[in-house]
Amino acid sequence: MSWLPNLQTETPEEGYQLAIKLSRMAVKLTQPDDEARNKMRPGYANNYDSLIAVSHVVAVNFQTVSQANNYWR
Amino acid sequence: MSWLPNLQTETPEEGYQLAIKLSRMAVKLTQPDDEARNKMRPGYANNYDSLIAVSHVVAVNFQTVSQANNYWR
Amino acid sequence: MSWLPNLQTETPEEGYQLAIKLSRMAVKLTQPDDEARNKMRPGYANNYDSLIAVSHVVAVNFQTVSQANNYWR
Amino acid sequence: MSWLPNLQTETPEEGYQLAIKLSRMAVKLTQPDDEARNKMRPGYANNYDSLIAVSHVVAVNFQTVSQANNYWR
Amino acid sequence: MSWLPNLQTETPEEGYQLAIKLSRMAVKLTQPDDEARNKMRPGYANNYDSLIAVSHVVAVNFQTVSQANNYWR
Amino acid sequence: MSWLPNLQTETPEEGYQLAIKLSRMAVKLTQPDDEARNKMRPGYANNYDSLIAVSHVVAVNFQTVSQANNYWR
Repeated sequence: MSWLPNLQTETPEEGYQLAIKLSRMAVKLTQPDDEARNKMRPGYANNYDSLIAVSHVVAVNFQTVSQANNYWR
Repeated sequence: MSWLPNLQTETPEEGYQLAIKLSRMAVKLTQPDDEARNKMRPGYANNYDSLIAVSHVVAVNFQTVSQANNYWR
Repeated sequence: MSWLPNLQTETPEEGYQLAIKLSRMAVKLTQPDDEARNKMRPGYANNYDSLIAVSHVVAVNFQTVSQANNYWR
Repeated sequence: MSWLPNLQTETPEEGYQLAIKLSRMAVKLTQPDDEARNKMRPGYANNYDSLIAVSHVVAVNFQTVSQANNYWR
Repeated sequence: MSWLPNLQTETPEEGYQLAIKLSRMAVKLTQPDDEARNKMRPGYANNYDSLIAVSHVVAVNFQTVSQANNYWR
Repeated sequence: MSWLPNLQTETPEEGYQLAIKLSRMAVKLTQPDDEARNKMRPGYANNYDSLIAVSHVVAVNFQTVSQANNYWR
């Protein structure tokens, strides 16, 4: 099964989780080595500028997912 | 109850607050340790480039929330 | 009265002013100490990369305000 | 007369010029001192990362202006 | 045949792959030397800020591709 | 003739080329000295963070061009 069968979710919160998944997948496809990614985690998880940058990417993806779900109206 | 039941708010100001909440949640989900996040707060709260970056993330989320509310027209 | 009663403005120029207000408010809500913010002002006002970053945030907010006003057509 | 009477332009090229004007105005309103801004110019005009950042801001504003003009279709 | 015959894809996952392709193509057209690009790969693949930045570009392109596919609804 | 007669292109690939042109034009208008720009080229063409930033700008402009062409549907 695809990791991204569709962009529709039942709730906004699930949509937000999907936005996080979309944000992480680009990282995973660029650096496929699990160990390499895990080694970097403490670095960005304790760097506020990196955390703000992560939040920015999630915001862009959440906009896409929200549009795809007609804002769950 | 979900932290994000829906994207609709009564007023633009509440919409802006929701945009801030959306911006913070990605940080919280990436760095779930409350103490670690609190320790970083003085750093970015006194760094203008970080504050501008925070404002950027809020702007993207506020765009999404505004669209979801048909701009409170 | 709310600092953000609505997103509609009479003219594009007022819309641009609102975009600046939206950009500043996220900074103010993250660093509520007036003195701390004032102390940072000479720093970013004389740093071209920070000024470009400020302009970027205003551009995103101006996009939102423009959409809210149907581009003042 | 307003510096921004409206977002409509006759041609895409004029729209692009307006996007540049919008990008510069946020800088001017944040750093109103002409001399201070002029002193910074050689810095960012010879720094490729700053020039790329300028181009990014113009791209966001050009998107807004293009929408306002229905893409000059 | 064109490297970009159209923006329509059968599935969201293929759309995500297209977003990655679009992100890489701008790099390739700016630095056409394959060897030069390959030499840089270990650098950004082990730099979390670069990986977050890559993810940001993919998010913007994925938004475009998603719109082009009417969100695969 | 204008460097930007319109935003419509025959194909997505030409649209992508237009997005690159739009991205470069803001740089050219900010730094009009050809020699100064050429001198910077090796710098950003061998700096992965700059190349990612270039790709980001192209992505924003490609979104605009794609919208202008109704995604070549």
